[in-house]
Amino acid sequence: MDQRNASVAVIGAGNFIGAAIAKRFAAGGYHVHGGRRTGDKLAVLTDEITAAGGRFTPHTLDAREGDQVAAFLDAADASAPLEAVIFNVGANVNFPILETTDRVFRKVWEMACFAGFLSGREAARRLLVHGRGSIFFTGATASVRGGKGYAAFASAKAGLRLLAQSMARELGPQNIHVAHLVIDAGVDTAFVRERIAAMKGAEVAANLPPDILMNPESIAETYWQLHQQPRDAWTHELDLRPYGETW
Amino acid sequence: MDQRNASVAVIGAGNFIGAAIAKRFAAGGYHVHGGRRTGDKLAVLTDEITAAGGRFTPHTLDAREGDQVAAFLDAADASAPLEAVIFNVGANVNFPILETTDRVFRKVWEMACFAGFLSGREAARRLLVHGRGSIFFTGATASVRGGKGYAAFASAKAGLRLLAQSMARELGPQNIHVAHLVIDAGVDTAFVRERIAAMKGAEVAANLPPDILMNPESIAETYWQLHQQPRDAWTHELDLRPYGETW
Amino acid sequence: MDQRNASVAVIGAGNFIGAAIAKRFAAGGYHVHGGRRTGDKLAVLTDEITAAGGRFTPHTLDAREGDQVAAFLDAADASAPLEAVIFNVGANVNFPILETTDRVFRKVWEMACFAGFLSGREAARRLLVHGRGSIFFTGATASVRGGKGYAAFASAKAGLRLLAQSMARELGPQNIHVAHLVIDAGVDTAFVRERIAAMKGAEVAANLPPDILMNPESIAETYWQLHQQPRDAWTHELDLRPYGETW
Amino acid sequence: MDQRNASVAVIGAGNFIGAAIAKRFAAGGYHVHGGRRTGDKLAVLTDEITAAGGRFTPHTLDAREGDQVAAFLDAADASAPLEAVIFNVGANVNFPILETTDRVFRKVWEMACFAGFLSGREAARRLLVHGRGSIFFTGATASVRGGKGYAAFASAKAGLRLLAQSMARELGPQNIHVAHLVIDAGVDTAFVRERIAAMKGAEVAANLPPDILMNPESIAETYWQLHQQPRDAWTHELDLRPYGETW
Repeated sequence: MDQRNASVAVIGAGNFIGAAIAKRFAAGGYHVHGGRRTGDKLAVLTDEITAAGGRFTPHTLDAREGDQVAAFLDAADASAPLEAVIFNVGANVNFPILETTDRVFRKVWEMACFAGFLSGREAARRLLVHGRGSIFFTGATASVRGGKGYAAFASAKAGLRLLAQSMARELGPQNIHVAHLVIDAGVDTAFVRERIAAMKGAEVAANLPPDILMNPESIAETYWQLHQQPRDAWTHELDLRPYGETW
Repeated sequence: MDQRNASVAVIGAGNFIGAAIAKRFAAGGYHVHGGRRTGDKLAVLTDEITAAGGRFTPHTLDAREGDQVAAFLDAADASAPLEAVIFNVGANVNFPILETTDRVFRKVWEMACFAGFLSGREAARRLLVHGRGSIFFTGATASVRGGKGYAAFASAKAGLRLLAQSMARELGPQNIHVAHLVIDAGVDTAFVRERIAAMKGAEVAANLPPDILMNPESIAETYWQLHQQPRDAWTHELDLRPYGETW
Repeated sequence: MDQRNASVAVIGAGNFIGAAIAKRFAAGGYHVHGGRRTGDKLAVLTDEITAAGGRFTPHTLDAREGDQVAAFLDAADASAPLEAVIFNVGANVNFPILETTDRVFRKVWEMACFAGFLSGREAARRLLVHGRGSIFFTGATASVRGGKGYAAFASAKAGLRLLAQSMARELGPQNIHVAHLVIDAGVDTAFVRERIAAMKGAEVAANLPPDILMNPESIAETYWQLHQQPRDAWTHELDLRPYGETW
Repeated sequence: MDQRNASVAVIGAGNFIGAAIAKRFAAGGYHVHGGRRTGDKLAVLTDEITAAGGRFTPHTLDAREGDQVAAFLDAADASAPLEAVIFNVGANVNFPILETTDRVFRKVWEMACFAGFLSGREAARRLLVHGRGSIFFTGATASVRGGKGYAAFASAKAGLRLLAQSMARELGPQNIHVAHLVIDAGVDTAFVRERIAAMKGAEVAANLPPDILMNPESIAETYWQLHQQPRDAWTHELDLRPYGETW
């Protein structure tokens, strides 16, 4: 694999999508830096990427703290000029409105939206120095549609979406590609399969058609392609769903 | 004017729209309670409504504090059974993303979104006891579309919008009417006329066609009508714009 | 009832919503003209409105024919100056894409969209002479969201919606209020109750909670209120749904 | 170039985007069939693709005629199993509503929407036989937003969009990838540069920053990438805009 003199930062590298994005950009030759609450838990991912000939540096990062985000991106930028920052922190919860405490509403927002703002702003600060780069935000169905029990989550994700849209308008002319991806279904994880089993029965869960759930690698490929787009034809929003029914 | 044994609470009663909403519901016979940061500044509004034969109680209220919101709504509910709560707190700011501090982003969200959540939840808690009622949220163009410099404001307003949408889905079947109104232009105030003068020249500002800017009373009338809708045909979102160009 | 020297035209007066709109504007003092494919079928509606002291003139009208629309609106305008035109023609069908014939796709569009264009353009032509007026279009869930089997219907309704939006932008500054109403559920008719019985069982259909289905009168009231809006605060789009679940 | 035993059909191959899509899929090894009103005008495109080692068959096609569309797709399918159909017919016009004749409104719809329906349905009919494939529709800003003078065009494009969305819901589970691309700006053509010169002056037009207008090749690349997406993570809608201001 050709190594590029450039780095990519994945904020929220701990979940399935984040890990897949890290692998994809590492496979593309970038030095990838991944942050999550407990950096130790990135050991397996580090090993996988390293074994495949890639470069990955794990970081412990609370993305709700501006100085931690700044230090994390500085570290990435110091390893090689920063070229892309992907914000992929999730906070999917469901509570009836009366049971949504101040603390929950605020925390979901801090994780899903405020951390996205800090990541986006600090990314912009560094990418503008280099005069180019990508900032991508991971969205969800709740980013565009509210629903019963989703007061906190949909509110935070919608906030992230219009943050991204506002940044795209401002930073596009400065050669920064900002995009928002609406991941419109669950990815194929043990947790999702358990939820399907609970809803539809164990037999349904065990006999799901192949690739009816989203593979994180497939999602990650779209982030990669967006980063390849020439600047005369940038996508600012797209959705991703599996071909079949949503379970 | 017939007096009803019911109260209405306006959170953010200090601005032009909030004051007009208070007057409209007072004229409709409700005991209206209005909250704003400095309750003393509601003296003129109190006098106007009282002189017109209505009932209005001013409150000092920081809507970002859950216990203040709860106490405010309790006071309204104690005066007469609470029937409608209107959240009308604004926080329109415009900053380049790099100049949007943590504090600004957080404060705009606390005012425009978190306070809306507290108001909505505490309103629901009380209205559900009575088995009926309305909760309305004031939105803006930025609620549905981001733009250059609007990272903080659009993010917060979008968060408020999907909060409202989620609450509507959950509370509708429990006979609570939740709606979000997109006020898609500036109201006719000295501030807006000054801004037009700065952009378009003093002559243009002085010679604006009649009613080319929105009159707060016209906006308030739509809140009133929404509250009259029978529950078999509720509106959950609408826009309001003047007939002519937006200045 | 005070009689106004003004007329209102309802295109698609034959269904439940159209009939209710006709009654509401007649009750408001307008001379209402209603058109449907077979004017004879408007006899009951004519009797009802007349018995209530209103004025209603039935017309046989194929709204897909521009000269028929023009003649219909001319007749209304001759009876008293035309002040509002409501387009309410439905064409709800559901076919798998492979079974959607050229004829069906074209016919659904001609009824739900092309007829709306003819009605809107001919309405504008006459209202602009008077220097004011309203043009309202009835939309549906399918106006904003496609779905399985709705290729023809959703396509036509989406076309009607952006026709309305384009007309609103152009005609607003000329004092013509154009609005699009998204009727986001079924109205309470024998047909809808039969469909619910087929889907959910006869018992469910027989024991529906009161007002869980939309009453056409409730919908019509919103058309009426829109027409009352002062031009400094016009609504261009709103939705209408019952408080409970959609059946 | 490796030749695949598969064909791709481009309906509306005559404009810049259509030609670029044809080249991209030919470069990817597909036997590409292109249709336009006057097939003779595809001679240059045919030569270019052939010279580059690709396969391209030009067709004279009026896409508003179902039997012509069927015959065109049959010809493609006969050359090699059909794998993708791209509908790219434009009809951008701007008329005040009163000057929009029945004929114009109908013709714009027939070109931009009805032809899309015929193409989509006939594509589905053939791709379902093979059990897989892609159907992509080219949209525009007007697909999602009406505007002054765009009654005909926006109506037709919105109709195409919800056709695509409805087909996506129905055909996705049958392994057919349906997507709609919102081309949200003008491509770099002599016509667009002339329009910019007329609006902004010759000097501005002559000194446009590099790649401020969209290059058709860049757009075509995104169609190609969509066709590569694995079915567990399909995009159904995305936008494309240049990095800078829209001129």
